[in-house]
Amino acid sequence: MNGKITVIGLGPGDENIITNEVKTAISNATNVIGYSTYLSRIKKQKGLNFYPSDNKEEFKRAEIAFELALNNKNVLVVSSGDPGIFAMATVIFEAMDNGPQKWKDIEVEILPGISSMLAASAKIGAPLGHDFCVINLSNNLKPWEIIEKRVRAAITCDLVMAIYNPRSKSRPDCFLDLLNILKETCEENRLIIFARAVTTIKEKIEIVKLKDTHPEMADMQTIVIIGSSQSKLVSNKDREFCYTPRSLL
Amino acid sequence: MNGKITVIGLGPGDENIITNEVKTAISNATNVIGYSTYLSRIKKQKGLNFYPSDNKEEFKRAEIAFELALNNKNVLVVSSGDPGIFAMATVIFEAMDNGPQKWKDIEVEILPGISSMLAASAKIGAPLGHDFCVINLSNNLKPWEIIEKRVRAAITCDLVMAIYNPRSKSRPDCFLDLLNILKETCEENRLIIFARAVTTIKEKIEIVKLKDTHPEMADMQTIVIIGSSQSKLVSNKDREFCYTPRSLL
Repeated sequence: MNGKITVIGLGPGDENIITNEVKTAISNATNVIGYSTYLSRIKKQKGLNFYPSDNKEEFKRAEIAFELALNNKNVLVVSSGDPGIFAMATVIFEAMDNGPQKWKDIEVEILPGISSMLAASAKIGAPLGHDFCVINLSNNLKPWEIIEKRVRAAITCDLVMAIYNPRSKSRPDCFLDLLNILKETCEENRLIIFARAVTTIKEKIEIVKLKDTHPEMADMQTIVIIGSSQSKLVSNKDREFCYTPRSLL
Repeated sequence: MNGKITVIGLGPGDENIITNEVKTAISNATNVIGYSTYLSRIKKQKGLNFYPSDNKEEFKRAEIAFELALNNKNVLVVSSGDPGIFAMATVIFEAMDNGPQKWKDIEVEILPGISSMLAASAKIGAPLGHDFCVINLSNNLKPWEIIEKRVRAAITCDLVMAIYNPRSKSRPDCFLDLLNILKETCEENRLIIFARAVTTIKEKIEIVKLKDTHPEMADMQTIVIIGSSQSKLVSNKDREFCYTPRSLL
């Protein structure tokens, strides 16, 4: 008899925005697999075995998950945010598609989570209230030329952009290159949101004008939202918000 | 003393994926405002007054919300899915920006929800696992020419597309026009996902090849996900999934 793989999204950090569906999955699991930083968010409980791994070992995680499930385990694969956005759900299907035939005997379920971009958007206002695109800025798995083509297309048709994985120690240049493209093509007061560690105690969210941005404002824990030409600020008595109006009429 | 406006996302339907943060907000509210279909998902409770409205009365809802908050009420404004994606969060900031000065005295908080596209993606696999864009296909608030420009740009740079509001009785043609653009520019086996009433008892999710699509497959309760050229099917013993691989190398 085979077990099952459930890929869950823990949301960006706040326990209060993890869904009950995900909490139930955690309480029913026998094995939990994922990036060690995310696994540390799951409480230890009797009968739950942890398989932490490094950040770049995605396929290894899938392999462990399928093999444990073939041994009748109820396996959780953990992502931060939503598992379907640049995260472990895709890895599990890549493994199902390309791995041994027996892995196709395993039941797989994906449970959504609040993605970092939705949490960031809510904290800062409503920057994603008009058409937008979502781009993984890492050139580990695709050439920079394709990323640049997509960024330039988004600018040309005035889409808001939510940028995942803007900058890491091993890729310091992608985000610099993005800022250079923006500075070359957009007005200097274009609004750029840097949302770091959203909904955690380290949360820091800033709205910056394009002319005042520099690459060090982003790291791997940052979601960057590039406003469209229409995105704007509004303040109430308490604070400043950024939103993108619905109408272009 | 003033009250507060909290804009909440109820998720696409399943009670089990409403966040605790949102449930707490509901239990603390005095007044709840929104499209009547969404309000019907909130349990009646003592001291909670309901202000249901028709689908197109967004600004009216904002006006009621600010005026109630000025009268010391704890007001909830309700969206399905996530409130920041083509929903009420944007409307509240438009109203704050353009309404009477006194509305700026009101505290506003946005609480995210599982968006329809995240729930649809989870149910069908991982179609949003690579770069994608999110387009509201309604031409009520923007000219069709801009929508078409964005759709063509997304096709040209091979982004997956999540399409909101594909088709309504008053706008039967937008989705037909979209399908015609796709049929003219994409391969006939391109994968198109129709996800209707996701996570409700009426849920129906289909993966269809472009050549087999017709406009009647979509309505206002449908999220349509247009695969990129890379999106593909994989089956296990139980069923078929659609995913978009991470790598373009």
